[in-house]
Amino acid sequence: MRGRGFQPANGSPEEQSEKSFLEAMSPQVITCKAAVCWGAGEPAKVEEIEVDPPKAGEVRVKLLCASLCHSDIICRNGFPVTPTGFRCDAIHFCREIESIGEGVTDLNVGDVVIPAYLGECKLCENCLSGKTNLCFKYPVPMNGLMPDGTSRMRAKGQTLYQFLGCSTWAEYGVINTNYVVKIDPKLPLAHASFISCGFSTGFGATWKEAKVEKGSSVAVFGLGTVGLGAVEGARVSGATKIIGIDKNGMKKAKGEAFGMTDFINPEEGDKPISEVIKDLTGGLGVDYAFECTGFTPLVNEVLESTKVGKGAAFVIGAGHSKTVELNFITLLTGRSLKGSIFGGIKPKTDLGFVIDKCMKKEINLDELLTHEVSLEEVNKSFELLKQPDCVKVLVNI
Amino acid sequence: MRGRGFQPANGSPEEQSEKSFLEAMSPQVITCKAAVCWGAGEPAKVEEIEVDPPKAGEVRVKLLCASLCHSDIICRNGFPVTPTGFRCDAIHFCREIESIGEGVTDLNVGDVVIPAYLGECKLCENCLSGKTNLCFKYPVPMNGLMPDGTSRMRAKGQTLYQFLGCSTWAEYGVINTNYVVKIDPKLPLAHASFISCGFSTGFGATWKEAKVEKGSSVAVFGLGTVGLGAVEGARVSGATKIIGIDKNGMKKAKGEAFGMTDFINPEEGDKPISEVIKDLTGGLGVDYAFECTGFTPLVNEVLESTKVGKGAAFVIGAGHSKTVELNFITLLTGRSLKGSIFGGIKPKTDLGFVIDKCMKKEINLDELLTHEVSLEEVNKSFELLKQPDCVKVLVNI
Repeated sequence: MRGRGFQPANGSPEEQSEKSFLEAMSPQVITCKAAVCWGAGEPAKVEEIEVDPPKAGEVRVKLLCASLCHSDIICRNGFPVTPTGFRCDAIHFCREIESIGEGVTDLNVGDVVIPAYLGECKLCENCLSGKTNLCFKYPVPMNGLMPDGTSRMRAKGQTLYQFLGCSTWAEYGVINTNYVVKIDPKLPLAHASFISCGFSTGFGATWKEAKVEKGSSVAVFGLGTVGLGAVEGARVSGATKIIGIDKNGMKKAKGEAFGMTDFINPEEGDKPISEVIKDLTGGLGVDYAFECTGFTPLVNEVLESTKVGKGAAFVIGAGHSKTVELNFITLLTGRSLKGSIFGGIKPKTDLGFVIDKCMKKEINLDELLTHEVSLEEVNKSFELLKQPDCVKVLVNI
Repeated sequence: MRGRGFQPANGSPEEQSEKSFLEAMSPQVITCKAAVCWGAGEPAKVEEIEVDPPKAGEVRVKLLCASLCHSDIICRNGFPVTPTGFRCDAIHFCREIESIGEGVTDLNVGDVVIPAYLGECKLCENCLSGKTNLCFKYPVPMNGLMPDGTSRMRAKGQTLYQFLGCSTWAEYGVINTNYVVKIDPKLPLAHASFISCGFSTGFGATWKEAKVEKGSSVAVFGLGTVGLGAVEGARVSGATKIIGIDKNGMKKAKGEAFGMTDFINPEEGDKPISEVIKDLTGGLGVDYAFECTGFTPLVNEVLESTKVGKGAAFVIGAGHSKTVELNFITLLTGRSLKGSIFGGIKPKTDLGFVIDKCMKKEINLDELLTHEVSLEEVNKSFELLKQPDCVKVLVNI
């Protein structure tokens, strides 16, 4: 990193007016390292980038650690920003505030924060409804830019875009304070990184979105970080039957570590998964089922695995295709299908519950951490994700 | 009708033992008229049929009036009983009990009842859950037979099958008491007929299934009896914006009679319906949307017309195809899609609420009645349904 956030002014005291002193003490452009994808599908390349000072309502943060999930692969492949002129870096990290913009009163330099990819105004119809975390004022940004429509990052004279609301895999980045949650610096940084996305998405889907009741039965399709979060959320909510499904047999032990009671490997039998689940639940199916793979054709099995009348299925993984051919009769017989972003968790209001459980060691996120890489090795992390023993790759910046 | 339910014994008193007297007083086979479909897609034919006495836990009922809805067309076309050996008659009626089977204690000869096509045991997991009306013990019968797997009807030496749990378009029929609701005989019979199916399906979907809140916005796709029931349920629940959608312009006045505030005729513009609905709701869409046409490709427009984050869409019409190509992103952004049978209404527990509203004239079902036919004219009713001014056809038996 060259340059600092705060630049003390030079020269004799008489040369310094109050104005120029303040100007000189203002955050400056930082030149630092970042992993950048220059085109859809291309490997990330570590570059020198320029990061602007934070504008009003923004903070500039120093990256402490980051991690990788399936969304990052989708991002690298060009979604949601179109490939033309596409550059990205990825989400899931924990940061320390390096400088703050005008009007920022609730955060200070040195605070450790988790960035969220969706904001919370606490005042719009959706924030006040108690039914959703999708704020109308601060939605999930899909254009790779700050809420004011501009970028704070450049490299080689070109604008850099963010993935959703968070620039990452960079030593420094700027984020709007409505997308930031202050955390206790004693929370292990790797854990904070996992909480900022995948784990909370699964945990929230069961605890917050589905509101799984004590004694419920739950099926979780896919035991990656999102799925293991769902297993953990089901356990914390008091579910007594938690069925995990994964074609990777190594996930059985991971699922059990988080409270899974039954494991199905679909490749070990010929029966449809929903039938195996019904066999495990007295023929009725489960109360709640969660699609955590993003493989859209699975949605019918997920829905079919739930009870007639009151079975609730949730899709929480970014889909691999834009549509799904849904069985109408399965739906019509009283089942429901709901989509969920970040597990229905409101970053500022709800994330504290998850962090608190983690601080008290009621949730052990060490089970998620299987691999670590440096920023320079970031492309290796995409390969590591394909290994059967891999759950979460931590990127040390 | 030849023969009576109760056959007084003949002969001198000394010839009658107590046993033979009781046997003679027992209900006998009744020969009466019924409209029968002898094959899938064939017109109904009025035939003489034989109706057995009720067995234990059953009642034999005299049909007073019946009505027709879209499900009857599906039934005539062979669903759910396969065309092989298929004979049916249709649902939606009001009956008076002619005789009762062994062990029936909660109903008496002369009681006026509404038959329901789903039962309610009040004891199974689903009945006790408070979340669904789909009883595990007395489900919707799909095999055209009584719960014991047999039929009480014959014609020309062949078994007759029912449509779901109710034999209809017959002068007499037998029904299991778990599928029967006793009503006040002062309730107009036509109204009782409408309440037994279509109207309650729509009304319940808004009032019971969606639990539409005061001040909500609602969109109803299709303004047949089900859709008008949904409009009425939304009004009763306190919705302030009730948008009706129908390509038949004559439905505008009908919708308004039940409380519709806005009308969209999709054939009068080029915009997708969901966009027109967003234009009418400040760009956000509605809180609740109901698919009441059974035209499955509409499901995406129904879902898209609801709010990001908390919009809830319900499919309550029997689908015209077995699958629907669902837009995944529309769902993923926090919307939900739920199927519903009979509007989530438990026949024995909930139907009283609807009947009470009707008795107090808080709901005026006269608006639904547009045509009447005799049993002999039953095929004409299928043609009448196609007329733009038709809502409900009453069949007078």
